Amino acid sequence: MRIHVQNPADETVFPITPQQWDAAIARAPDMADLQVSFASDDAGFAAAMADAEAIVTWTKVVHQRFPKGALPGVAPKLRTIFCTSAGLDRLAPFDWLPEQMTLLNNRGTHAAKAGEFGIMALLMLANHVPWFAHDARQGQWAPRFASVLAGRTVCVVGLGSLGGAVAARAKQFGMHVIGVRSSATPHESCDEVVAQSDIDSVLPRAEFLLLACPLTPQTRGMIDARRLALLPRGGKVVNIGRGALWDQDAVCDLLESGHLGGAVTDVAVPEPLAPESRLWRTPGLFVTPHMSSDDPATYNDRSLDIFFENLRAARAGQPMPNRVVPDRGY
Amino acid sequence: MRIHVQNPADETVFPITPQQWDAAIARAPDMADLQVSFASDDAGFAAAMADAEAIVTWTKVVHQRFPKGALPGVAPKLRTIFCTSAGLDRLAPFDWLPEQMTLLNNRGTHAAKAGEFGIMALLMLANHVPWFAHDARQGQWAPRFASVLAGRTVCVVGLGSLGGAVAARAKQFGMHVIGVRSSATPHESCDEVVAQSDIDSVLPRAEFLLLACPLTPQTRGMIDARRLALLPRGGKVVNIGRGALWDQDAVCDLLESGHLGGAVTDVAVPEPLAPESRLWRTPGLFVTPHMSSDDPATYNDRSLDIFFENLRAARAGQPMPNRVVPDRGY
Repeated sequence: MRIHVQNPADETVFPITPQQWDAAIARAPDMADLQVSFASDDAGFAAAMADAEAIVTWTKVVHQRFPKGALPGVAPKLRTIFCTSAGLDRLAPFDWLPEQMTLLNNRGTHAAKAGEFGIMALLMLANHVPWFAHDARQGQWAPRFASVLAGRTVCVVGLGSLGGAVAARAKQFGMHVIGVRSSATPHESCDEVVAQSDIDSVLPRAEFLLLACPLTPQTRGMIDARRLALLPRGGKVVNIGRGALWDQDAVCDLLESGHLGGAVTDVAVPEPLAPESRLWRTPGLFVTPHMSSDDPATYNDRSLDIFFENLRAARAGQPMPNRVVPDRGY
Repeated sequence: MRIHVQNPADETVFPITPQQWDAAIARAPDMADLQVSFASDDAGFAAAMADAEAIVTWTKVVHQRFPKGALPGVAPKLRTIFCTSAGLDRLAPFDWLPEQMTLLNNRGTHAAKAGEFGIMALLMLANHVPWFAHDARQGQWAPRFASVLAGRTVCVVGLGSLGGAVAARAKQFGMHVIGVRSSATPHESCDEVVAQSDIDSVLPRAEFLLLACPLTPQTRGMIDARRLALLPRGGKVVNIGRGALWDQDAVCDLLESGHLGGAVTDVAVPEPLAPESRLWRTPGLFVTPHMSSDDPATYNDRSLDIFFENLRAARAGQPMPNRVVPDRGY
């Protein structure tokens, strides 16, 4: 099978290297017959697309190289597109994807890192760290005391790789975990799970709310001003999903009004945030620059392992576990 | 037995209330015969000292009410002083304490809270949070990526209630934990333990260094510029003990030079820090205002439980477990 790896031309932290590929093959000897090429430029891409059957690449490359109508023309033999991202909202709507082609994401890659970031964010909020960051700008030593997480309630929206890992850490710290996902199917790390359509019923109990779901037409704008107001006074919020999942101006407004007790967000609209954005200046809000879930020490290794698991499933006539369902958006 | 609780006049967060006392007695029915009084003023203190056999109070109250030479005169029947703090460095040297009198601290109270703060600080450092706090002041969106804690080495100095709890959390996250304490006695949450006199031998391996020991003549200034330089380049440091355990100017210097990769400190010299202190302005340094280990929801309950455990030990003719050894300083 003929595979092509197309790295973005400007990528310095996460390019997939031939060494990483060889190491992944060493972990998956049944994949040793794959023929692979690497490129980061136009010429390498064009040459490879003549006979590539699968491409391993970035959402931004897919967005740029496969506009609506380009496929199958630019890559006549291509059947599988593997994106090294979990959230493919940038590629929606999926009308550029021919029906016979399979789009895969790398969900599973981010779990360990996302779980650590998530519990860190909950601990930072419990410990008033976003407020201390603002006090520091004025050189103000202003103690606020804090309680442990045990026994407190967190609502985790999205129970995939990211949210599931955060829920597991939250349980480890003795929290009461309410999960929210598309259906109310139980989850091993949650004390309760409700369907997204029932989220309003649990928000009044959510001392902490953490967003870790994909951005789809069903989740866009889900946490609006009305739902933020349903949180108990002093409620604390985290977003490691996508900025458009919530109304970020409403988050700022409710921090300023005192209804919210703190916020940590790793995502924003737009990214990068402009220097003049109010998100940088709102007391109680801590911004990290979209780095919560990507561990450079393991990212490409895990992505390639997951890619090979999917090829293995296809060879065995099984469904590919990372297949993105275009109508669902993830 | 006649007990007096003296709260500081200005204390709003942590005063011990009669309700908390009654609840603690309900948990310890064998203490129901204790006679207790409460005060926060001079008159109440003076009246109680006539016959009090034990006092439950703050280090700052002890410092103010029992200057050298005052005891036993001001409190002729007093035999036991229980301080609702773990670190009694403020009361050193202990030449004000008559030999026949027992000084107790509340070690054990802080464990759960300190463990959470400690692992939060390690996660914040791993995730570059102190740097993002400074980027936010300029409205600068500047991603830095981060790896998980698993497999990385932390050196925890002090394995009492605070350091032991942090070591346990660090193990839970898969870290390699090196403990440092007065002697090299093994500890259940540490992979290795070395004596304080051997600390230089482990610092070059300490990607993270966390200080959680008491401030004594033996530990004052222990982490000086020379020892900070022994840390590997990019080493990250946390202080939840006392500001005078390290050279805080050297920490700032080595952050500025790039040798250190980040710092979180909950303690400083002096406290409160002045608005013009360089600690507020040094990129990579995050200051919290001495709140790491004090959980107001449980603090007094645990302190009283510990006080009663000590009285129970004394009644049984056993050594009191929280007795402070003046020569040792903790």
